[in-house]
Amino acid sequence: MKIALAQINYITGDITGNVSRIISEIEHCKQQGADLVVFAELAVSGYPALDMFEYPHFIEACDRAVEKIAAACRGIAAIIGAPVRNLEPRGKKLYNAACFLENGEVASVHHKLLLPDYDVFDEYRYFEPADKLHILHYQGKKIALTICEDMWEVGEPTLYDNQPLEILCRENPDFIINIAASPFNIHQAEFRKAVIRKNAARYALPIYYVNQVGAHTDIIFDGGSMYADREGNIIHELSYFQEETRLIDPAQTILQPRTDYIERIEQALVLGLKDYFGKMGFKKALIGLSGGIDSAVTAVLACKALGAGNVTGVLMPSPYSSGHSVKDAEDLVANLGCNSWKLPIEQPFNAFLQTLEEPFKGLDSGLAEENLQARIRGTLLMALSNKLGGILLNTTNKSEAAVGYGTLYGDMCGGIAVLGDVYKTDVFKLARHLNRDGELIPENTIVKPPSAELRPNQKDSDSLPEYEVLDPILKLHIEGREGKTAIVAEGYPEATVDKVLRLVHINEYKRFQAPPILRMTSKAFGSGRKMPLVAKYS
Amino acid sequence: MKIALAQINYITGDITGNVSRIISEIEHCKQQGADLVVFAELAVSGYPALDMFEYPHFIEACDRAVEKIAAACRGIAAIIGAPVRNLEPRGKKLYNAACFLENGEVASVHHKLLLPDYDVFDEYRYFEPADKLHILHYQGKKIALTICEDMWEVGEPTLYDNQPLEILCRENPDFIINIAASPFNIHQAEFRKAVIRKNAARYALPIYYVNQVGAHTDIIFDGGSMYADREGNIIHELSYFQEETRLIDPAQTILQPRTDYIERIEQALVLGLKDYFGKMGFKKALIGLSGGIDSAVTAVLACKALGAGNVTGVLMPSPYSSGHSVKDAEDLVANLGCNSWKLPIEQPFNAFLQTLEEPFKGLDSGLAEENLQARIRGTLLMALSNKLGGILLNTTNKSEAAVGYGTLYGDMCGGIAVLGDVYKTDVFKLARHLNRDGELIPENTIVKPPSAELRPNQKDSDSLPEYEVLDPILKLHIEGREGKTAIVAEGYPEATVDKVLRLVHINEYKRFQAPPILRMTSKAFGSGRKMPLVAKYS
Repeated sequence: MKIALAQINYITGDITGNVSRIISEIEHCKQQGADLVVFAELAVSGYPALDMFEYPHFIEACDRAVEKIAAACRGIAAIIGAPVRNLEPRGKKLYNAACFLENGEVASVHHKLLLPDYDVFDEYRYFEPADKLHILHYQGKKIALTICEDMWEVGEPTLYDNQPLEILCRENPDFIINIAASPFNIHQAEFRKAVIRKNAARYALPIYYVNQVGAHTDIIFDGGSMYADREGNIIHELSYFQEETRLIDPAQTILQPRTDYIERIEQALVLGLKDYFGKMGFKKALIGLSGGIDSAVTAVLACKALGAGNVTGVLMPSPYSSGHSVKDAEDLVANLGCNSWKLPIEQPFNAFLQTLEEPFKGLDSGLAEENLQARIRGTLLMALSNKLGGILLNTTNKSEAAVGYGTLYGDMCGGIAVLGDVYKTDVFKLARHLNRDGELIPENTIVKPPSAELRPNQKDSDSLPEYEVLDPILKLHIEGREGKTAIVAEGYPEATVDKVLRLVHINEYKRFQAPPILRMTSKAFGSGRKMPLVAKYS
Repeated sequence: MKIALAQINYITGDITGNVSRIISEIEHCKQQGADLVVFAELAVSGYPALDMFEYPHFIEACDRAVEKIAAACRGIAAIIGAPVRNLEPRGKKLYNAACFLENGEVASVHHKLLLPDYDVFDEYRYFEPADKLHILHYQGKKIALTICEDMWEVGEPTLYDNQPLEILCRENPDFIINIAASPFNIHQAEFRKAVIRKNAARYALPIYYVNQVGAHTDIIFDGGSMYADREGNIIHELSYFQEETRLIDPAQTILQPRTDYIERIEQALVLGLKDYFGKMGFKKALIGLSGGIDSAVTAVLACKALGAGNVTGVLMPSPYSSGHSVKDAEDLVANLGCNSWKLPIEQPFNAFLQTLEEPFKGLDSGLAEENLQARIRGTLLMALSNKLGGILLNTTNKSEAAVGYGTLYGDMCGGIAVLGDVYKTDVFKLARHLNRDGELIPENTIVKPPSAELRPNQKDSDSLPEYEVLDPILKLHIEGREGKTAIVAEGYPEATVDKVLRLVHINEYKRFQAPPILRMTSKAFGSGRKMPLVAKYS
């Protein structure tokens, strides 16, 4: 049996578009002589359709889509992920299903049993777990067809009471197919390969694995579909961060080059930006350029994703901006060849101070004046966006977002946060990486001490621990779910840990109103991390 | 057996505070001669602790808290809701549990079986469903002890495969206890009473039902704990929107007066504001006063919740503000006796236009200039907040939020959105209701046509259908999950429906960055409604 893996970039909710993309891929695979083409989980609807799954007319459209794709399956079969109705009066109204399409019709439907409900996943909100699992029969072969998480849990401890592969493998299948929507984080590809290897070896069966590729707001699917033999060797590995359809020849080995995590971050962010703009039908981006490293890295990534001609950097110097900041930003613009505006904020700043003269009378200058500058910049950028039509990119990094070192409605503005899941220490590494073929980001931007430049001679380190100390503490707390005692036990000073955790807690309210963040780690701020606002943290 | 129902206002995450509140209530009930005092679901942690449940040190603190409360149970028993560990290597790490405390120790633990995962609920993210249910034995009685949702599903269709009460009632209990955290919406109290009546009559057993009271950011528990006899008559009904502990005497009937839904909205919003400020330790609120009805209603509610001395209204007239707007806002301030500032925005507006002269050259005035005014106002309000210390209240209503009739980082600023789940037509009713004992909101504010006053002679109805048409369409779509065809079938013009649904879809991105919204309906914008941003809606 010749099996093709179709790793496609779907658009959430664009059922018509997804269906025609899928059908053209089926035709293409048929011409190549495939007997079966396998698409990813929830391919028809797009994976993160969220509460669109609650709308009856959306589900009707998915029903019709599956029938239409089935009609295209003549002389070839296909497996496709789709939401499918539960017609019983008990349980959630939908299943997360794999539909087997053959001879122009839906020949069998296979439901997902293990529904992830952690981090960015919330499948139990929409789907009923499978009540039974059954083997797929095709061309005399028995296939253990599973959906993502159903193959994910191996051994104990486990979040679930069942192991679907164990159940299916009692019927001695010839091989395993898993259709997935497994989102990127910097360690996920290796983790995923380990799971495939372990399962193939455990059940002594080959595994065909198809992932989605493409970004959906914050969540990025990185592809890397694969085929493993019954010894657990990965023989085929499809591309990362791009579409690919491949007819699997078990005799041939085609793998992908290994990459460094900083390289993966670059690739993921570029795809994240490309799809954010492409799938919304936008072309142009705006970025406030401070001369600092976060906005410089964001600008380079935007130019890579959208083309320099579609990127506009906006310099908005204040009386507190150092001369080198303006020069660094101007050098960056020159290096990138992007568009730019220079709009000094002194005039609106003075106008605001005059307007606020009476309420501010007799009070010292401080945070209010600093935030005012940031909000004037946010307002200028949004005015340009409204007038000229670009989408504002947010340049906040994860370290800043964590400790609330940013101004709500100021530098926290934007349609999408590019670096919001990249720690500051990694932003520096990313900057070096982006300069690998020659200087794009001015050297001075990389080497100068980070500063918000909202008051004379301000440095980030006036308010925060050095990033080399801050970032590991944040990582232990955010990704590692460690509390104070455990972090101090790792050797960090108690006073610093106290301060950092306090800052994380009291700034939940700011992150609540932040733009969506491109997800790079196993725990990004945003939909995968839900924290109460009105609460006491002990 | 004398049973007391303790309807308490907990603080999420404040385990120490919750425990001492609970213990003092146990002491108090013991003095009154109670044999058993019943507290609500997840009383120890607060209900919406969200991902705090993933932190081991948080769970350890909950463990110790339950032991401490148990130690206080001598000569009286207590039932208390708490997260309790699952020690098996399979399944989620916690149970949502009811702990029965007697003779100084945890005598038995009862797990919740049905874990709601819809709207604002996501319990399956943290909790393993009960693997078995068991009867509680106390003073020779058999008690069917259940947790919230476990008693909620009666008959079919149902979201679940089991009916816990049916299982427990096979063992012939003497009565039912249900501990709950059932959030307010305008119809929930009646719905809740119907469920209690139906269950009591169905199993021919009395029911003791304890709800939480109090607001946790967006979610408001309204109390209304109760006791129903075995015929399904509600005999005792505790207060709404306030704490109450009552020793239940089945021979005596004490019910609450029936209220209109507009009155319930007022009570819920006042409690929502009171707890948002009180639980965060804030006292003062800021509100931008436009002379319009939304800001006027918000200001009245804030004065009721916080006292007029803690409320500051800020008038920020522009060249497009009508004379009557300023007068209406001034009349409101005078009626309420709150503080106020008047800060005209003309100076910063002109400064921005001068700063933007080059990029705006040759382009018509329009949306950018309108949003600029809104963002100047947002910036002024945040500057006052930073300098003088009040929390900005957002005044956006649900109709505006739905169709995106508001400026991100402008009038969409604020710590909490007071009216974000109140449709404009209900804002008018609420205004009349708030004026019931004399004019607080100036009559002119209520009767004049709604306008954003961002350009000369602007009216809301220039851009939107009349609210009497808009609101029912929104309600069918948002609360009712209806699509275009179904809404048109209700008699609304196709072109209007198309336009409204399109506006709802293209403005998901704005709502993503909106402040939390006090939840009034069965489907509020915010954590209970998850919609993709990068998506196509058909």
